[in-house]
Formats: sequence, structure tokens, C-alpha cells
Amino acid sequence: MGPQNFKFQLFFAMDRVKVLASEHPEWKTTEPFKSVLANDMHGVMKGGVPGLLALVNATHSGMDVETFKEEVAEWLKTAKHPTIKRPYTNLIYQPMMELIQYLEANDFKVYIVSGGGIDFMRSFVPEMYGIPEEHIIGSSGKVHYKDGKIMKDDEIYFIDDKETKPLAIYRHIGKRPVAAFGNSDGDFAMMEYSEANKKYKTFQLYVHHTDDKREVAYDRKSHIGKLDKGLDYGINNNWTIVDMKNEWKVIYPFELNK
Amino acid sequence: MGPQNFKFQLFFAMDRVKVLASEHPEWKTTEPFKSVLANDMHGVMKGGVPGLLALVNATHSGMDVETFKEEVAEWLKTAKHPTIKRPYTNLIYQPMMELIQYLEANDFKVYIVSGGGIDFMRSFVPEMYGIPEEHIIGSSGKVHYKDGKIMKDDEIYFIDDKETKPLAIYRHIGKRPVAAFGNSDGDFAMMEYSEANKKYKTFQLYVHHTDDKREVAYDRKSHIGKLDKGLDYGINNNWTIVDMKNEWKVIYPFELNK
Repeated sequence: MGPQNFKFQLFFAMDRVKVLASEHPEWKTTEPFKSVLANDMHGVMKGGVPGLLALVNATHSGMDVETFKEEVAEWLKTAKHPTIKRPYTNLIYQPMMELIQYLEANDFKVYIVSGGGIDFMRSFVPEMYGIPEEHIIGSSGKVHYKDGKIMKDDEIYFIDDKETKPLAIYRHIGKRPVAAFGNSDGDFAMMEYSEANKKYKTFQLYVHHTDDKREVAYDRKSHIGKLDKGLDYGINNNWTIVDMKNEWKVIYPFELNK
Repeated sequence: MGPQNFKFQLFFAMDRVKVLASEHPEWKTTEPFKSVLANDMHGVMKGGVPGLLALVNATHSGMDVETFKEEVAEWLKTAKHPTIKRPYTNLIYQPMMELIQYLEANDFKVYIVSGGGIDFMRSFVPEMYGIPEEHIIGSSGKVHYKDGKIMKDDEIYFIDDKETKPLAIYRHIGKRPVAAFGNSDGDFAMMEYSEANKKYKTFQLYVHHTDDKREVAYDRKSHIGKLDKGLDYGINNNWTIVDMKNEWKVIYPFELNK
């Protein structure tokens, strides 16, 4: 789910910047806000994960996390993906949904471990994927406690990517995963951590995004969601590599009704 | 469980210091090691939670967390509480056990949120209390990922106490507790966070350790596990206050067999 969450949250933060721009005249001349206001996606993307988190922090610091989650939920009711022209909540991967249900039906506990913001994901993942808040692990901003509320600060606390993914799994879960699914080098350490499980047989799967018609194609040279080292390792170590273009009959659930 | 975990872990770290002392001649003259080697409990306790974590870090940095947990489990097989003269695993509170079982039988998810070390607790709490690793939240040291392993560093990462308890609950669970149970001012913020739940009716309970014969008595003036501000607030706000001496017929399960 990595790059997908990342993009959703980027669009959310960009919309918030536009809403709040009149209160921040300085944004017209400072990045990443300047690129957002100019609808310059390339300029925005150059900032990567820290750039996204800077946008999120700037638009939401001082807010308590419950209000933030309500705001995301409200935004999702009407916002649509800029090119697919559908609500973000429609853009779940059908095969991923089926996998989650299959695993849960067989008594596995399923967690989402993504670079996306933990509050952002917790505002829609439970309803969209049937995965509860406490099974959602992500990047997070600094917070502090005040009078019964968790308040968002304007600072990054934890970025859930690459070598920090197994650390986050260790802190949240305290067990090694028996199965790990990824789509980029950012997932590699987590999958390697799963593979090194000595207690149980394990399973690792990479979804290789190869379909530039129905979805988006990226791998070795992508700026965000690069899949290079992990792909080589997976191929050489019997990991399952899914070729999205040729192996996913259906990507999004709405295709089922066509 | 706060002070109890704290003490168990302190005894574990003290035993480790004694085992490793021959490799560290400098410990004879530096605190908190000096007090440990002199069996000076008062000197050791003066360091509080940071002192305990310093002991844990010094005796376990460079070790991977799975080996650490095995070492704790091994220690627990033979170690006995210095005054009660029983294995630590016997020193579960019978009423706490019954409460956990009652809540779980009614579909509540039960978490332990303690100042004790997260790895230390995860090595025995699942078997002792039937609470899985992923429902155990605690203090933790810094770690790094290397070649499929989580390695312990010699630095404190997170102390789970007072205002950081609700932060830890927010990060791990992402939901407000509907019920919270504590025994010291260190639990107050967590209980207040639970009480501020607007979505559900809530419940807060303090166990007041009043029994200096069967267990230990502490409250307003205790060095560790102080219960002062929380006791006043609880009394004034209809929280349930349990008087251990007069209301707990049984403290430890082994009393049932007498």
C-alpha cells in the first residue's frame, strides 16, 4: 500500500494548503507550499516523504488527532482522485482485499505497515479494509498530551520506511511476521525480517506494478516507490513476484461491475 | 502493574550486573552499579526509572531482542523474589487475573501499559497473563535493524510514564480506552485520557496498595509508585478506589491453595 497511501495523503495535504493559503501569504514564496499552490506536482514530489510530512505538519499542527481524523473522513466523502476521477475509498486493490480476507479467515492477524501517516490511515483504513486502528502502523508526527487530548506538533517523530519498518513492527507487535507483502525497496527490510523468522515457515510477496494502462508502472528507476534491490533479491530467493499487468485480472473493485 | 514490573526488572538487571561484573571492573566505583554490587537497594532505587534503564542498557546493549527475551525467560525459571521467596511468575495478582479474564470474556481487548521495559514484559506476560505481545506497551531502549535482527543500543528511546502513557496508547492502539486501571500518579494521565472518551461510557479504577502485611503499602509519600494527586482526583470524580487490605481477600493465586 505504500505509494498509494502516500499519494492519497499528498492530495489531502495539498487540498488543505489551498484552503488555508489565505491565512499564510508566505506560502506563495516558500516550498513545498509554492509548488502546491501552483499545482506543480513535480515540484511537490521532489520533497519526497519529508516534504509530504512538512505539508501535513504545517496544515495540522495544533490540532488534536481526533479532529484531524474527522477532517480526513470529511474530505474523503467528496474528494476524487485527480486522474481516475473516483473517490479514494473506491481505489482499494481487489486482490489485496481478497488476500486480507483469506488470511483473516485462517486466523492470521493482518497489519498494514506503511510510510503513510498513521492518523491519516487510521481515519479510513478500518472502514475500507476492515483492519482495526491498532493494526495500522505508519509514519507519525510528534504529539503531546494536554487535558485529555493528543495534540499534533509541527515536527516529524517517526518515518516508517526501509530499516525502520522492522523496528516499527517490533515496537507495535513484538513478533516477527510470518508473511510480508510489499511493492518497493522500502518494504525490503520488513520482508527480510519476516524471512529471518526461525520459528515458523514464512512467505514473502512483491507486487510488481507493471500496468501503466490500468494503474501505474514503476520499478528500478522510480522516484517514489522504487523497486530495484528488492526485486533482484526476491527473484534470487524464491519470493513470490506478482506481475500486476499479466496476473491481476481485476485491480479495483468497481471493475467487477463492468 | 507498574511498580511490580519495575521491581522484577530491577532484580533481573541487578542479577545481570553481578554476573557481568568481572568483565567491568569500573562498575565497582560507578553508580548505579556500585550500589548493585554492594546490595544497597536504597542506593539503586535513588536512580528511579532512568537508573533502572541505565542498568538494563549497560547489561544488554549489543544483544538482539530475541536473545534478550530468551535470557529473561531463562532467569525467571529459577529466580525468586528476595522477600516473598517465590518465583516471580507466581506473583500475579489474582483479582487482576480475574478482571482480565472477565473483560476478555466480554469482548474487550486488554492491554498492559506499564513503565516496565517492553521486551522484559513481553518475555513473560503472554504466558503469565494470557495477554499477547502486541497488547503490551512499555518503556523501551533505542534499537537498530541489522541483517534480520533488532539490536539493542545503549540509549533510552521511550519512557512510558505519566503524560507519555496516553501518547503510547495513541501510537499503539489509536483508540481511547473505555476503561483504565492504575495504581499510581504515573497512571493518572492515561486514566484521564480514558475518562475524556466522548464516544463511550468509561470506567476508571485505582488499586490503592494499603496492605503492608500481605503485600506492600504506598501512596502519597512513596518514592516509586507515588499515588497522591490521582487519589484526590479519583475520590472527587467517582473513580473506583480499591482498598487492597480490606477489599482483596486473595492477593496471589498461591493463597487459594492454602
